[in-house]
Amino acid sequence: MTPAVRVLAFDIFGTTVDWYTGVARQAADVFGHLGVQLDAGTFTSEWRAKYLPSMARVRRHERDWAYLDTLHRESLDELLLEHGVDDSVDEASRQRLVDAWHRLPAWDDSVAGLRRLREHHVLAALSNGGFALMTNLVKAADLPFDCILSAELAHAYKPDARVYRTAAGLLDVRPDEVLMVAAHGWDLEGAAAAGLRTAFVERPREKGPDRQADRAADVKADLHATDFLDLAGKLGV
Amino acid sequence: MTPAVRVLAFDIFGTTVDWYTGVARQAADVFGHLGVQLDAGTFTSEWRAKYLPSMARVRRHERDWAYLDTLHRESLDELLLEHGVDDSVDEASRQRLVDAWHRLPAWDDSVAGLRRLREHHVLAALSNGGFALMTNLVKAADLPFDCILSAELAHAYKPDARVYRTAAGLLDVRPDEVLMVAAHGWDLEGAAAAGLRTAFVERPREKGPDRQADRAADVKADLHATDFLDLAGKLGV
Repeated sequence: MTPAVRVLAFDIFGTTVDWYTGVARQAADVFGHLGVQLDAGTFTSEWRAKYLPSMARVRRHERDWAYLDTLHRESLDELLLEHGVDDSVDEASRQRLVDAWHRLPAWDDSVAGLRRLREHHVLAALSNGGFALMTNLVKAADLPFDCILSAELAHAYKPDARVYRTAAGLLDVRPDEVLMVAAHGWDLEGAAAAGLRTAFVERPREKGPDRQADRAADVKADLHATDFLDLAGKLGV
Repeated sequence: MTPAVRVLAFDIFGTTVDWYTGVARQAADVFGHLGVQLDAGTFTSEWRAKYLPSMARVRRHERDWAYLDTLHRESLDELLLEHGVDDSVDEASRQRLVDAWHRLPAWDDSVAGLRRLREHHVLAALSNGGFALMTNLVKAADLPFDCILSAELAHAYKPDARVYRTAAGLLDVRPDEVLMVAAHGWDLEGAAAAGLRTAFVERPREKGPDRQADRAADVKADLHATDFLDLAGKLGV
């Protein structure tokens, strides 16, 4: 790969942390406490399924830019109505559910892989999560990033090119000196369109036991890796 | 102090790292290499003396917002002219001098103090240095911040209130939940005017052996500390 990659930008939800397990566990707690009969795993999948459409409305300028927390809350309210449990989930519980996305477990290889990569590159978290959400999540999971970047800084959402270009601009590098690392084809397509390099990391358990995560064979990227340690090896560090 | 402080925002140049020693050492290298007869310590003090006036022109809207690197470069060019050595310092050497501000040694207590404080608070670097400069400097000095913030994100310079309020906003806290930590009265005055709490850390060697740094007795702040470990003690952590 030439020119040299100077910055590695990591997607977070699904790529660096396990949102499915983390949110499902916290949702099971909340529902158990309230006596609400909802399967936490199914609920988590359905909630996440509303994520891309909710951001797409921002990208298509059908609404103003809004925090991911706001989008999560709106889709949570919708989902609770759809399941007929709107009356059973109080305000504090809804807040706890939205906050579940602020505290998620890292994949087993994430910390060790990032630590190895950080000796050779600048590592940035580049997520659609807001700056505060991302700072709290990275701190709680003890992820060794050099800086937090967020779609919030561009007031846009990935895969909008402005998110990737704002990240490169803030780090004072050219887009093709940034390698975007993600477990999602749509994110890497957006990054490539903005002029970044791309690395796909396969996270087969990302969507839980019953849904198919993006597969290496289906995703076009400059590099493919099985986890962050494999990525370090493929980058020769 | 009530309400509770959630975020500690640290000034960097002088407060967390020793710009005088770091820049003077690198300038001595560059001048020695070129055979330029300039005292590196005096030169460094003179260069820094142009820092506040150059930013004040941005704050007064006499010019558009510009990177700190750009301001450093302009004041460097002026200074070399003033000393009659304009012809002796080539482009690459000027670039090396501007880059000296990207790589500065931490004060002896900085890493240990930050590590202790980080267990209890979100720690942000909040500098007039640009986002890329700050990311590189924090990485090189191995300073354990949770996130990098920069005046660049507000397109303004401290002590402009927008810098402090943008920082609080990005971290989703109220201004009075942020404690600004600095070795400079002017920075803390700006922070207080924007609604932040303030902690003065005395750095008597900040301006080198011949110039007087800001003194605790002259600076109004909610807290006064002798270094970051003393600050941790005063915050009860």
